[in-house]
Amino acid sequence: MVKVLSHLDDQGKARMVDVSGKVQTSREAIASCVVKMGEDAFSALLDKSVPKGDVFSTARIAGILAAKRVDELVPLCHPLPLNFVGIDFDLIPEERAVKITATARTTAKTGVEMEAMTAATVAALTVYDMLKALEKGIVITNIQLEYKSGGKSGTWKKEA
Amino acid sequence: MVKVLSHLDDQGKARMVDVSGKVQTSREAIASCVVKMGEDAFSALLDKSVPKGDVFSTARIAGILAAKRVDELVPLCHPLPLNFVGIDFDLIPEERAVKITATARTTAKTGVEMEAMTAATVAALTVYDMLKALEKGIVITNIQLEYKSGGKSGTWKKEA
Amino acid sequence: MVKVLSHLDDQGKARMVDVSGKVQTSREAIASCVVKMGEDAFSALLDKSVPKGDVFSTARIAGILAAKRVDELVPLCHPLPLNFVGIDFDLIPEERAVKITATARTTAKTGVEMEAMTAATVAALTVYDMLKALEKGIVITNIQLEYKSGGKSGTWKKEA
Amino acid sequence: MVKVLSHLDDQGKARMVDVSGKVQTSREAIASCVVKMGEDAFSALLDKSVPKGDVFSTARIAGILAAKRVDELVPLCHPLPLNFVGIDFDLIPEERAVKITATARTTAKTGVEMEAMTAATVAALTVYDMLKALEKGIVITNIQLEYKSGGKSGTWKKEA
Amino acid sequence: MVKVLSHLDDQGKARMVDVSGKVQTSREAIASCVVKMGEDAFSALLDKSVPKGDVFSTARIAGILAAKRVDELVPLCHPLPLNFVGIDFDLIPEERAVKITATARTTAKTGVEMEAMTAATVAALTVYDMLKALEKGIVITNIQLEYKSGGKSGTWKKEA
Amino acid sequence: MVKVLSHLDDQGKARMVDVSGKVQTSREAIASCVVKMGEDAFSALLDKSVPKGDVFSTARIAGILAAKRVDELVPLCHPLPLNFVGIDFDLIPEERAVKITATARTTAKTGVEMEAMTAATVAALTVYDMLKALEKGIVITNIQLEYKSGGKSGTWKKEA
Repeated sequence: MVKVLSHLDDQGKARMVDVSGKVQTSREAIASCVVKMGEDAFSALLDKSVPKGDVFSTARIAGILAAKRVDELVPLCHPLPLNFVGIDFDLIPEERAVKITATARTTAKTGVEMEAMTAATVAALTVYDMLKALEKGIVITNIQLEYKSGGKSGTWKKEA
Repeated sequence: MVKVLSHLDDQGKARMVDVSGKVQTSREAIASCVVKMGEDAFSALLDKSVPKGDVFSTARIAGILAAKRVDELVPLCHPLPLNFVGIDFDLIPEERAVKITATARTTAKTGVEMEAMTAATVAALTVYDMLKALEKGIVITNIQLEYKSGGKSGTWKKEA
Repeated sequence: MVKVLSHLDDQGKARMVDVSGKVQTSREAIASCVVKMGEDAFSALLDKSVPKGDVFSTARIAGILAAKRVDELVPLCHPLPLNFVGIDFDLIPEERAVKITATARTTAKTGVEMEAMTAATVAALTVYDMLKALEKGIVITNIQLEYKSGGKSGTWKKEA
Repeated sequence: MVKVLSHLDDQGKARMVDVSGKVQTSREAIASCVVKMGEDAFSALLDKSVPKGDVFSTARIAGILAAKRVDELVPLCHPLPLNFVGIDFDLIPEERAVKITATARTTAKTGVEMEAMTAATVAALTVYDMLKALEKGIVITNIQLEYKSGGKSGTWKKEA
Repeated sequence: MVKVLSHLDDQGKARMVDVSGKVQTSREAIASCVVKMGEDAFSALLDKSVPKGDVFSTARIAGILAAKRVDELVPLCHPLPLNFVGIDFDLIPEERAVKITATARTTAKTGVEMEAMTAATVAALTVYDMLKALEKGIVITNIQLEYKSGGKSGTWKKEA
Repeated sequence: MVKVLSHLDDQGKARMVDVSGKVQTSREAIASCVVKMGEDAFSALLDKSVPKGDVFSTARIAGILAAKRVDELVPLCHPLPLNFVGIDFDLIPEERAVKITATARTTAKTGVEMEAMTAATVAALTVYDMLKALEKGIVITNIQLEYKSGGKSGTWKKEA
C-alpha cells in the first residue's frame, strides 16, 4: 500500500482523552437541575395523584440507571466502575419547582462529572415524561455541576 | 395458593399508558435547550480549537443515537419506530450560548416528545463534556418542548 | 471461489422464526412467578424497612424496562413494539412469599410471551437483590406463562 | 433559592450501597435453576430435534451475555469487571427437567451474586423460548444462590 | 432571544434520511464476508477442538443479536422491526477460509442492508475472537452486500 | 435430586477464559481495515458532498462507541476499562479506498484486540452506510490486527 495521504481530518477530530498514564483516585461529583411547572402539574405532584404513578421513585431509578450508561451516551466518556449513585428531590413550592441533585462516586483514572450530570438530567426527563399529559410547557433548567473532588485538578465548587 | 392480599402498592404504582387501542398516526415533536458558557469556552467553540475536537458533529451524533434509546432511558416510554431525528445548533453570541434544537418524527400510536427532548439534552450533555476541561461552570438550561403534532391531542405550540 | 462445502452445522443451528408472512394482530401475555423468603426478609418487606429502599417500585421499573429489551437478552426473539407492560405484586403471608404478575401487550406479527416472562423474572431478580443482604437463601420459583391471546394459535390458559 | 423543603421521599428511597470504602477482593458466586417440562419438549431436547436449533449452546451464550449486563437490568447493582462466567446444563430425566448452573467470578468491591443469578435465569428464559412452540406450560423453578465467596461476609453455602 | 446566527455546520452535518413519507414494504438483504486463516486455526476449526468452544454456534448468535442492534451501532440507521435474521457458514478448504452469509428481512419503510452487513461482520469478529489465541494474523475480508430487494429502488444483485 | 447425568455438551461448549489469576497490565492494540469503492462514492467523499453528511466524523464516533460495547457484541469478551480509543482515516486515491486505523488502550487483565478490531469495523460499516445510496457495491476488506502489546504474550506485530 503506497502513498497514503496524511491523516484526514486531524484538525477537529473527536478525541478521547488518553488516561493510560493517570492513577486511580477516589472521585466524587454532584450535579443538579430544576424542573419548573404550572399549578396543575405541581398540585398533582404534591398530592401524589399523577396518573402515571409515583414520579420520584421512577425518576430516581431512571437517573441511577442512566449514570451507569454514560459511556454509551456521551461519545468521548470513559467507562467507569461506579461506587455509588444517589438522587435526591427537593420541592421549591414558591417556584412550583423540583430540584434534583445527583451524586456519583468512583475510584478511577478520570472524573465522574458526566455521570452526575447525566443522572440528574435523565431523572428530570423522567419527571417531564410522567407529568407531560398534565402540562406540556414544563421546563428543565439549570443543569449544572455543583461540586467535584479527586484527580489532579482537585476540588471544585460552584460559586455561590 | 390461598388468601392472596389485594394488589400491593396500587396507589402510586408506575404505569405505562396502554396504547393498544390507539391508531398509528404521523407525529412530530421539536424540543430545544440552551448551553451557556464563559468566554474561554465560547471562544474555543467559535475558533474550533476545542482540544476534544469538533463539538457540534460529536454532539449531533450523540443526540441522534440517544433519541433511538429513549425507551431504555425513560422507564414508561414506548419503543417507537423513528422516521427521522435531526439536530441543529445556533450560536447566540451576545449570550455566549448555543441553542440546540432537536426534531423527531415517527408513525406510531404515541407521541415522540420524549425523543426530541432527550436528543436535545444528550446533545447538550455532550457539548458540556467536550468543553468541561475549559470551564466547569457551563450551564444547560431551558430544555423544553417547542412543538408537537399528530395524535388525538393534535398540534401544540409553546407560547411565544 | 470454488468447491464450497455444503452449509455447516445445519442440523441444530439456531434459527429465528421467519415472521415475514404473518399478519400483525393484537396480542397479550401474562406471566407470573413467586419469590419465597424467610422471616427476616419478609418482615422487612412488610414493614417497608428494607435498607436498599422501596422494593416494589424499584422492581416494577426493572421489570418494565426488561420487557423492552427482550430481543437483546433472548437471542431468537423478534423486536416488538410494546403497547403496554404492567407489573403487580401480591403478598402471600402464609408462605412468606410475593407473587409477581406481569402483563405485556403488543400489535405485532409474533407473540409477547417472552416479554411477560422476562418482565416477571427481572422484577423477581430485583426483589432478590434488594433483600439479599437480609437473607441469601431467598428462592425465585414457578416462573410460568399464565395466559396468552392473539395470533394464529389463539388463546391459551394455564390449567388450574 | 430559598426555603427548600427537606428531602422528599427519604424513607423508602432506592439506594445503591456506597462501596467507595471497600477493598477489591476476589469473589465468586454460583447460582442454579431448574426448567421442568412435559414429554414432548423433553424428548425434542434429548433428540436434539428442537425446530429452533441447539438449545444449550444458544442458552449458554444468552446467559453469559446477560451476566455482563446485570448493572443495566437490576437497578441498584454496581458495574463489575467480570473475570469469568460459565454455564452448565444437567439433564434430570426422571423429572423431565434441565438444571442450569451459572458461575461468575470478579475482582471487585462488591459481590457477584446477581451476575450468577441473572446468567442462570436468562439461560432458562432462552430454554423456554426455544421450546415454547412445543409446550407452553414449561415452568422455571428454584432460582437460587448455591454458593458465594469473597468480601467481608466471606463464604456462604446453601444448606443441603 | 435575538440575532441568532444561521444554522451552524449545515454543510456536512450528519442527517438521518427522513422516511416519514415512505410506505412499508417487504424487504430482504443478503451480505457476506470471508475469514481467512492459517493452518493451525483452520485445523482446530475443522476438528472442533477450539479451546473457546463451538465457533459457529457462538458466532451465529452474536451475528443475530448484532442485527437487532444496528440502530445503536450505526448512527444514521433507523430502528427496524426485523422479521428474520439468519447466518450460514461455509468452509472453503483450499483457501483455509470460512464464508459467512447473513440474511435479514423486515417489513419497513427503509432497507435492511445494514442489518445483513452488521450480522455478517459481528459473526466474523466472533470467529476471530475465538481463534485469536491460536493465530493473531487472521484476516476478515470481502464484507459486501450480495443482494437486496424491496423498496423504491427495487432489487439489486452483486455483479458476478 | 438424584441421578444427574454428567454435564451436557461439555465438548465444544463456549467458554470465557477465566482471567481471575491474571494481573492487570497496560495493554494496547491497533487494528485496521480498508473500504474500497467506485468513482462516484470516492468523489463524493473527496468533495465532502455526501448527502448523509460528514462521513469521517460520524464514522469516528461510531467506532469509538462500538469499542466501548465489545463485551455486549462479542459473547466471550470480558468488559474492559478502556483508557483510550482513537480512529484515523487515510485516503488511498489510487485504490479509491479509505484505510481506517483504530487504536485501543486499557489497563486490564486481558487484551484489547477485539476493541480495536470492532472499532475499525463499525467505523467501516458506518462509512458504508453513508455511501450506500451512491453505490451498493462498496467492499470492506482486510480487517486485521496490526499490533498488540502488554500481557503475558507480550508484543506482536503483523508481518510486513
